[in-house]
Amino acid sequence: VGDTISALGERALIERIRARIPKPPPWVIVGAGDDAAVLEPERNTVEVITTDALVEGVHFDEAFVSPADVGHKALAVNLSDLAAMGAAPRAALLSLMLPAAWPVAHLDALLDGMLDLAGRARICLVGGNITRSPGPLIVDVTATGTVHRRRILLRSGARAGDELYVTGSLGGAAAGLSELRADPSGMSAASARYRRPEPRTRFGMLLGRNRAARACVDLSDGLADGVRQIGEASGLGAVIDAHALPLGPGVAGLNDALSGGEDYELLFTVSPKLRRRLGGVRRLAHDLPVTMIGRMTSERTFLLEQHGRTEPLPVGFEHFAAPR
Amino acid sequence: VGDTISALGERALIERIRARIPKPPPWVIVGAGDDAAVLEPERNTVEVITTDALVEGVHFDEAFVSPADVGHKALAVNLSDLAAMGAAPRAALLSLMLPAAWPVAHLDALLDGMLDLAGRARICLVGGNITRSPGPLIVDVTATGTVHRRRILLRSGARAGDELYVTGSLGGAAAGLSELRADPSGMSAASARYRRPEPRTRFGMLLGRNRAARACVDLSDGLADGVRQIGEASGLGAVIDAHALPLGPGVAGLNDALSGGEDYELLFTVSPKLRRRLGGVRRLAHDLPVTMIGRMTSERTFLLEQHGRTEPLPVGFEHFAAPR
Repeated sequence: VGDTISALGERALIERIRARIPKPPPWVIVGAGDDAAVLEPERNTVEVITTDALVEGVHFDEAFVSPADVGHKALAVNLSDLAAMGAAPRAALLSLMLPAAWPVAHLDALLDGMLDLAGRARICLVGGNITRSPGPLIVDVTATGTVHRRRILLRSGARAGDELYVTGSLGGAAAGLSELRADPSGMSAASARYRRPEPRTRFGMLLGRNRAARACVDLSDGLADGVRQIGEASGLGAVIDAHALPLGPGVAGLNDALSGGEDYELLFTVSPKLRRRLGGVRRLAHDLPVTMIGRMTSERTFLLEQHGRTEPLPVGFEHFAAPR
Repeated sequence: VGDTISALGERALIERIRARIPKPPPWVIVGAGDDAAVLEPERNTVEVITTDALVEGVHFDEAFVSPADVGHKALAVNLSDLAAMGAAPRAALLSLMLPAAWPVAHLDALLDGMLDLAGRARICLVGGNITRSPGPLIVDVTATGTVHRRRILLRSGARAGDELYVTGSLGGAAAGLSELRADPSGMSAASARYRRPEPRTRFGMLLGRNRAARACVDLSDGLADGVRQIGEASGLGAVIDAHALPLGPGVAGLNDALSGGEDYELLFTVSPKLRRRLGGVRRLAHDLPVTMIGRMTSERTFLLEQHGRTEPLPVGFEHFAAPR
């Protein structure tokens, strides 16, 4: 079955990763291999920087998520944060904590998944760190992006009366996780949503560039949580139309769509007067569904309308409360 | 004894950390709290970016390293990487993986240690991530800095005939770790070197600004490893004078100085013709000892001179080979 991580050693592992990284663009002055990477800033832009980690036993289970899935997803969740700010991806650092007995072939597969997405998203791996883990596999990624200063998408920009929109569909990742727990070899569309979320990089950039959205977040912890994030940051409430929610593959009920995590869709608000700008963005992103699901209100309550009745919007997923 | 991490939950923990962060400077356009941080680049500089993690059971043992020590050290090792590039510290992201049963008071102490050093080093905590760990405590930091493009210190700039210098003293951290393993309550100078390494931030910046050094690394894995890093990157060898090595507190023999990790001193090469520039840097950094310990050679071998005899330079510390 080949070497393990501890048999190869740190230096050889770093060389193995470096050899896989495509030739960097000219703005990478010093790439992986020195004490730190050195990057030329992009003119007339500001820098967006974020970090997010995947921890075995908390964010994934190796029984039904492959090393390539983990590599893809660890980068995808960071790209999703950049997309929610309207930023173009630029550079990534990869901090790996590897169990000593992990096969090197798994590391290769993890890099396959990550570098494939990195190539498509045009983000450049410029460095990182590698160390032993006494327990779980941990993949921690830091991602940077660039955005024009006046094109930044924040959570706090919503106004009362704004319409709420969501990209793609909701609840598919939660439904996929349920399916995978029952059948770890499941290859349904829902399980793919869970294992390989597709960050909405291009759509986020288009939303920012066209100034079509007033506020935006990515949905890591469910729609209900995302609505609250925008509402609380903007000092507003919201009413969500349960019948309008675009349910993802394999989603049976509303619960997955409202409280299921890890869809990594974009939730954003649009002024009714600027609907035309959104129309322009939608034409440019022609294959990505965009659905209006509610509106922001001046009253600071979060409500769900269903069958003509109104009830409180449930709360979202809490990372510390329950393992996925 | 107070709350545990899991009792407080993710949101409350993030708020607790945010409340501790000093008011950011104007170049922080968006700080902690949105999907990502947004930073204004510094004019006429390039960006240096690095990441390094401390993993419980690999890099530290809670029996003799306090949470405040861990907070200090997790930032210090990243600041040391910036110093080795000649960069001025700027922004940091903190990615925490916390055992569910960890006391919140320990998190507060970890932040005490980190924010105290951050204030002194003038690095601004702009964001991060927090998640549960099913096992070890992990503190992963990403740090950015700035440097003028022609002032960057690389490993690869050494030339044959360059003199090799080291800041401070060697082996103290390894001696301190041995002491702490024997007596976890030890408060010697050596144990302080292990628990609270002082990054050579100012000296690294001075070296770069004055163009006094041709190549530089920080010593995380021992002097012998650092000498090899510069030699291999520059296509050279080196001869080290064993009698010249500045031994740290509690260091009995050469082994700690050569192969003991975690001193976080700077190792750099200077052209004999530019010794005067180094003199200027030393005057500005008057309280930090700087010692000449050998020279770079065109022959690609790494040698140690001792009692008039020459032997091969031992190899450095390997992270995957043995736990510290």
